[in-house]
Amino acid sequence: MRQIEGGVTAAKGFEAAGIEAGVKYRDRKDMALVYSQAPCRVAGTFTSNLVKAAPVQWDKKLVECSPFVQAVVVNSGIANACTGKQGMDCCQSEAEWAGELLGLPAEAVLVASTGVIGMQMPLARIRDGIEKLAAAKRDTLEAGHDAARAIMTTDTVPKEIALQFELGGRTVTLGGMCKGSGMIHPNMCTMLGFLTTDAAISREMLQKALRADVKDSFNMISVDGDTSTNDTLLLLANGLAGNEEITVEGEDYQIFCEALRQVTTYLAKKMAGDGEGATALFTCQVEGAATKEDARILAKSVICSSLSKAAIFGHDANFGRFLCALGYSGATFDPENVDLYFQSENGAIHIYSAGCALDYSEEEATRVLSAPEVTVLADLHMGDASATAWGCDLSYDYVKINADYRS
Amino acid sequence: MRQIEGGVTAAKGFEAAGIEAGVKYRDRKDMALVYSQAPCRVAGTFTSNLVKAAPVQWDKKLVECSPFVQAVVVNSGIANACTGKQGMDCCQSEAEWAGELLGLPAEAVLVASTGVIGMQMPLARIRDGIEKLAAAKRDTLEAGHDAARAIMTTDTVPKEIALQFELGGRTVTLGGMCKGSGMIHPNMCTMLGFLTTDAAISREMLQKALRADVKDSFNMISVDGDTSTNDTLLLLANGLAGNEEITVEGEDYQIFCEALRQVTTYLAKKMAGDGEGATALFTCQVEGAATKEDARILAKSVICSSLSKAAIFGHDANFGRFLCALGYSGATFDPENVDLYFQSENGAIHIYSAGCALDYSEEEATRVLSAPEVTVLADLHMGDASATAWGCDLSYDYVKINADYRS
Repeated sequence: MRQIEGGVTAAKGFEAAGIEAGVKYRDRKDMALVYSQAPCRVAGTFTSNLVKAAPVQWDKKLVECSPFVQAVVVNSGIANACTGKQGMDCCQSEAEWAGELLGLPAEAVLVASTGVIGMQMPLARIRDGIEKLAAAKRDTLEAGHDAARAIMTTDTVPKEIALQFELGGRTVTLGGMCKGSGMIHPNMCTMLGFLTTDAAISREMLQKALRADVKDSFNMISVDGDTSTNDTLLLLANGLAGNEEITVEGEDYQIFCEALRQVTTYLAKKMAGDGEGATALFTCQVEGAATKEDARILAKSVICSSLSKAAIFGHDANFGRFLCALGYSGATFDPENVDLYFQSENGAIHIYSAGCALDYSEEEATRVLSAPEVTVLADLHMGDASATAWGCDLSYDYVKINADYRS
Repeated sequence: MRQIEGGVTAAKGFEAAGIEAGVKYRDRKDMALVYSQAPCRVAGTFTSNLVKAAPVQWDKKLVECSPFVQAVVVNSGIANACTGKQGMDCCQSEAEWAGELLGLPAEAVLVASTGVIGMQMPLARIRDGIEKLAAAKRDTLEAGHDAARAIMTTDTVPKEIALQFELGGRTVTLGGMCKGSGMIHPNMCTMLGFLTTDAAISREMLQKALRADVKDSFNMISVDGDTSTNDTLLLLANGLAGNEEITVEGEDYQIFCEALRQVTTYLAKKMAGDGEGATALFTCQVEGAATKEDARILAKSVICSSLSKAAIFGHDANFGRFLCALGYSGATFDPENVDLYFQSENGAIHIYSAGCALDYSEEEATRVLSAPEVTVLADLHMGDASATAWGCDLSYDYVKINADYRS
C-alpha cells in the first residue's frame, strides 16, 4: 500500500473541477464537481443532527435508492440548511442542470453544500457555476486539487490523499478530499468528504466498509463539539480497476478496508489539525480500557474539553483537566489506577500515576507541549481496548473567527 | 417571600468568616468558614465526575452518615483533587483541627476546596488559616460577605442572596453563596454552593427538596461543558426559626421549595453570567416541548454550543447555529415547525418560522443581541413542557484565562 500524489482524480476514470461561481465568497473558487466516466456504486454517511440540510436529505435518498451515481456537485459559502422547500427545490435543480450537461439522470447526481446556515442559494449563480464546472472537468491531479480548494470554508489548507494497492493482481486506487474546520464534531458521519475508488465492490460491501470505518476515523475528531447540519461523507466506486468484484468479507475486503482506514485517518487528522484557530493537533490516546466503546468515549471526551484545549494552547501541563475530562465522559475506570503521559516530537513525560502527580519538571512539560502535534496518553490498566481521538487547541482565533463568521 | 440583605449569615444562628491564608493566592482572602450555633441537618449534591476531589468524598460520607453537622471549612486556590491518600488525610486533618477549635467532632465538619487540580495542600498554612477563621467568625452580614469573597477563584463578583418567608406564623430565612466561573457544567450537583436556613425540616425532606431543585437550577447552567471534580452544593438547616418541623410534602414544604428555587436560580444565573471571560448572560428558553426532560436537554444544548456562544459574543444573528444545537441535542422535534426569537432589554425579534428565515433586519437583530442579557426562545409546538438554561458567551478572555490559569 503506497501513498501517491493526488486526491479525488487519482483513481481511474474520475474527473474533477473547481471554479469561481461567486455563491457567497468573492475572488476564490467556491464550486466543485466530481465526475466518474463510468457509473458508480456509492456509500454514504450523514449527519445525525435532526436539522438536516437539504443536500443531506437529497443524498440520503440517492444513496439508498438510486441504481447508480456518477457526479457530485458541491458549493461552499452557503449551507442550504434551514431553507425549507425552496432549499429542496434547489437540490433538484442542481441535479437536473448538471444531469443535462453531463448526460445523466438527476438521480445520478449527488449535491453537497457548506457554509452559512439559513441563507437561500443564489440559483442563477449556481446554474452558471455548474456550466463552468461541466466545461472545466479534467482527470488531472490539478483538477482534483482545484476541487479540494473550492470546497473550503474557514479551512486554511486543502485536504487530499490517494493510495494505491493490489487486489487480485490488479492495481486499485483510492483517493479523497475533505473540508472542515469549524462546527466539527461528526457523529455517524463527517463534514464534507468525498472518496473515489476504481475498485469493483458491491454496494453492500461498500456501505459496510464505510460505516465501520467512520467509527474510528471521522467520528473520533472534534473541533468544537458542534455536530453540523451538513456532514456528508460519500464514497464512489466505479470498478474500472478491473479487480474481481468484492462481494464478501474476504482478504480483498480486508485490504480495501485497510486502505480506506489510511485515507480516512489521514483526512480526519488533517481536519482536526486545521480546526478553526488551531495552533496544534491535539491527540488523545486511551489504552488499557475495558471495551473499545469506553476507549472511544474517553479519548473523545478529552479532546472535546474546552479547558483541556485551552491548556494545550497555553502549553500548560495542567494535567488535572485531562483527568477531569476522562472522569465526566460517562465511561467507567478507576481514577486511582491511571497513568498519564504527554508526548510530542519534543519528548515524552510521565506526569500522573496511582492517584497523584509525579515529580516532573514544569519546564520540560511545557517544552513537550509546545510542539505542533501533542499527544495525551492515558493508560487505564483495565483491559486491552484502545482508541485515539483527534482535536485541536482552543485559541483566541477560534473566538475571532466565530464571532465574525458571517461578516 | 422577600429578598433581604446578606448570604450565609442571614439565617438565625449562622456565623461565617473569610480570611487570608496564602493557600496559593497572595493578598486576597482564600479561606472561609460557615458555622452554625446549633447542630444542623444537611443535604448535599455532588459532582457526577468519576474523578472526585478528596473533599467531595469526605462530604458525601458525612451527608449520608453523620448524625449532624455544624461547620464547613472552604479554601480556594487548590482543589485537593487527584491528590491520592494524602488528599484524604488532609480533609481529615482539616475537620479535626476545626473540630478542636469549635468544640465539635470531626464528623460534624464538612470541607470543600476549589482551584488547581493535582496540587497537594499546604498543611501548615491550612492549619493557621483554620485558627484565624475560628477567631474571626461572626454572625454579621459582613462576615458572610467575607466568606463569599474568600471562595472565589476566577469569579469577578461574589454571589450571595437571602430570602425571608413565613412558615406557620414563624419567619424563616434561607440564604446562600456560591462560586464558579470556569469548569462549570454541573451535573446532579453544582460548583461550590453553600445554603443556610433556620427552617426546621427533616433530613429526608431537606435532601428531597435539594435534589429536585438542582435539576432546574444549577444543573441548567454551563460555562464550558466541563463538569468539575469538586462540584459541591450543601444545604444546612439548624431549625432555629422555631417553625413546626417539615416532615411531609405539605404546604410548608411547597413554600420552602419555592424559596429554595428563588435562591438557587438567582445564584445559578449569577454564576453563568460571571462565566470566565463572559460579556453577556446567555439564556435559552424552550417552550412547547413534548416532555420536561426534552425541554431541558434542548435548552442546555444551545447554551453549551461553542458556536452559539461565539455568535452571542459577536452580536451576530447567526440563528442557524442555535437550530443546529437544538438539532444535535438528542431530543426529538420537527425542525420545520420551530419558531425562534431573540429577546433582550433592547427589544425582541422573530427570526425563524416554518423551516425558513423570516424577513428580519440584521441591524435590529444585532441591536437586540448587544444587551448584557440575551435570550434565545425556541417554541417547538409539540406540547406544554418548557425549560430554561443559562450560560454565557465565548470570548477571547475565556481563552486567555484558561491558557494561563495556573500561572
